[in-house]
Amino acid sequence: MVEYFSFELQAEDGNARAGVFYTPHGPIQTPVFAPVGTQATVKGLTPEQLISLNAQLLLANTYHLFLRPGDKLIADLGGLHQFMNWQKPILTDSGGFQVFSLGEINKITDDGVTFQSHIDGSYHTLTPEKSIQIQENLGADIIMCFDECPNPYDREYNEQALARTHQWASRCKDAKTRQDQALFGIVQGGVFSDLRIQSAQYISDLDFPGNAIGGLSVGEKKTEMLEILNLVQEYLPSDRPRYLMGVGTPLDIVQGVARGIDIFDCVNPTRLARHKTAITRTGRINITKKIYEKDLSPLVESCCCYACQNYSKAYIRHLVRADEMLGSILLSIHNLHVLIDLSATLRVAITEGSFQTFLRDFLSESEENGVP
Amino acid sequence: MVEYFSFELQAEDGNARAGVFYTPHGPIQTPVFAPVGTQATVKGLTPEQLISLNAQLLLANTYHLFLRPGDKLIADLGGLHQFMNWQKPILTDSGGFQVFSLGEINKITDDGVTFQSHIDGSYHTLTPEKSIQIQENLGADIIMCFDECPNPYDREYNEQALARTHQWASRCKDAKTRQDQALFGIVQGGVFSDLRIQSAQYISDLDFPGNAIGGLSVGEKKTEMLEILNLVQEYLPSDRPRYLMGVGTPLDIVQGVARGIDIFDCVNPTRLARHKTAITRTGRINITKKIYEKDLSPLVESCCCYACQNYSKAYIRHLVRADEMLGSILLSIHNLHVLIDLSATLRVAITEGSFQTFLRDFLSESEENGVP
Repeated sequence: MVEYFSFELQAEDGNARAGVFYTPHGPIQTPVFAPVGTQATVKGLTPEQLISLNAQLLLANTYHLFLRPGDKLIADLGGLHQFMNWQKPILTDSGGFQVFSLGEINKITDDGVTFQSHIDGSYHTLTPEKSIQIQENLGADIIMCFDECPNPYDREYNEQALARTHQWASRCKDAKTRQDQALFGIVQGGVFSDLRIQSAQYISDLDFPGNAIGGLSVGEKKTEMLEILNLVQEYLPSDRPRYLMGVGTPLDIVQGVARGIDIFDCVNPTRLARHKTAITRTGRINITKKIYEKDLSPLVESCCCYACQNYSKAYIRHLVRADEMLGSILLSIHNLHVLIDLSATLRVAITEGSFQTFLRDFLSESEENGVP
Repeated sequence: MVEYFSFELQAEDGNARAGVFYTPHGPIQTPVFAPVGTQATVKGLTPEQLISLNAQLLLANTYHLFLRPGDKLIADLGGLHQFMNWQKPILTDSGGFQVFSLGEINKITDDGVTFQSHIDGSYHTLTPEKSIQIQENLGADIIMCFDECPNPYDREYNEQALARTHQWASRCKDAKTRQDQALFGIVQGGVFSDLRIQSAQYISDLDFPGNAIGGLSVGEKKTEMLEILNLVQEYLPSDRPRYLMGVGTPLDIVQGVARGIDIFDCVNPTRLARHKTAITRTGRINITKKIYEKDLSPLVESCCCYACQNYSKAYIRHLVRADEMLGSILLSIHNLHVLIDLSATLRVAITEGSFQTFLRDFLSESEENGVP
């Protein structure tokens, strides 16, 4: 019998790792990409469709579910897994990112954040303790520390915010009561190397079963993100999973894995789908283009996803132009497949010791295709 | 080997019939309810989900597909079945109903109808010959005569329109070239018994492999619809399927079957789903109501559809309130199940000789529930 929230490192290739993270709702094989189900549903897809995609882990948003339908309601109904009919692992974020990006901020103090709901303007306060309480009501397998995610370039503000984020991480740890949830810490610090190192050390010392890197892919340069990943990985314990929050693109995932990241999530695959865009490993397809009008080929030749196995570009283009739900459903299936399948491919490459070759080929192909 | 478009009558109970209609894409067991896939997709559902629902026949709209993406395009891409990945039978309407209800009519003559597209205002002309040409390009198993569907209460106009509809039916028959499609005639005549009888006789004489009754459920009283069905069935050949176009509700289906109808279609189940409404055999549920906030029961106890087997009213209410696609998808699955399952139940009842009992119980339950 394995212990919950233990991380079994199965193979390494350079800094890239293949592992298994054990949760009460089953093991997660890493590297893993988690589809985002903001409001307790991955937009347009059934759980069965997600299982067909080999999705292992879903992310749901604390901020959204707290405001609607309410975390207490979900707890009364048996928790998020039962509510949304998803029996595999779930991760909830802390609500921090959305409070700072969606809510109308009323006041930030060392205690917490008062904000107005983006839905009805009502006032709410999130504190570390409140965030944990909500996440315990939701009942995900992995829950996150409440953190602040400031403008990555504002040195002075990042120093203050980081002090708060660290204090909040300790308070989250103290507030947590459920034993069947793993609380992950979050490293912040903007684009500043010394702050990031300081943060990684502080968060590591709190001995969480997993650690995340937040505040990236929020407007900084790609090279800055990669430098921070290079730095931070050395300070985060190698026997715990590392989660790069809100990232990414296929290139981000490959480069993140090369820097010791195990878990990724991003709204991009489903959001781009709703914006009529298919992704490929090294590019994007705007499916509304006239050139696809009579194109009987799938979105991506050789892709084994449900959308590519059964539908032509011409049909998907028609659906998208006619504003039909099935258009964004098929694009979501394809886009999620690209990232989930890429993660599985990386895992195999790491296990077989061919990751460095894969990385080199992938980077050169991305460069040829002009991927930034 | 059965002949295509033969109708095998397997059981009768009063005027209700159970049969099989053979098409190039497989047999259709009647009574049958056909989900509507207006733009070559049943809104939000994959073909696999429709097959799970035991959908046997889909309806697609000639008017919509003619305007976008264009029938020639669909023909070039291998026809509607291949385009939309649906290998079971398809029925296309003639475009008549939509021209008269959606398009901005420019001119109606004995030759045809000139109208403006509801999408971009462009001008088009539909004639019987053009409608058949489009439907041959689309390639459905069952195609329909081009007809006019006027205000059911305008006697003088109905006389003129009926003369046109009859002339158009003959022209459609002459225009048809494909042997792998069955062309159905359409009985019109508003609420006027003599016109309806005249029309049923005229259409029957044209010896179509199936006959439809159009221009009902367009604003007339329920009692008027039922009287017309009572009348018309006697004049339509009993060895051909009878199709009641654009109908209906569970009650309409039961009452239609009792009057010798074999085929039904209606946008209601998917349209109501998008309007936050679940249907039951004898009523409706507005799922947004506060009373369902914590309701862990399925939409309908004892319902074996995917939505009811896996989700609570509380979850579906949350999805609908949060404007999530999965809300209307689950409601569509449930609503279509109600009608498809009802049709299958009627078939069993007819076969077992218990239809009259079922009918009596159904009507009394509907009356108790105040179904109009």
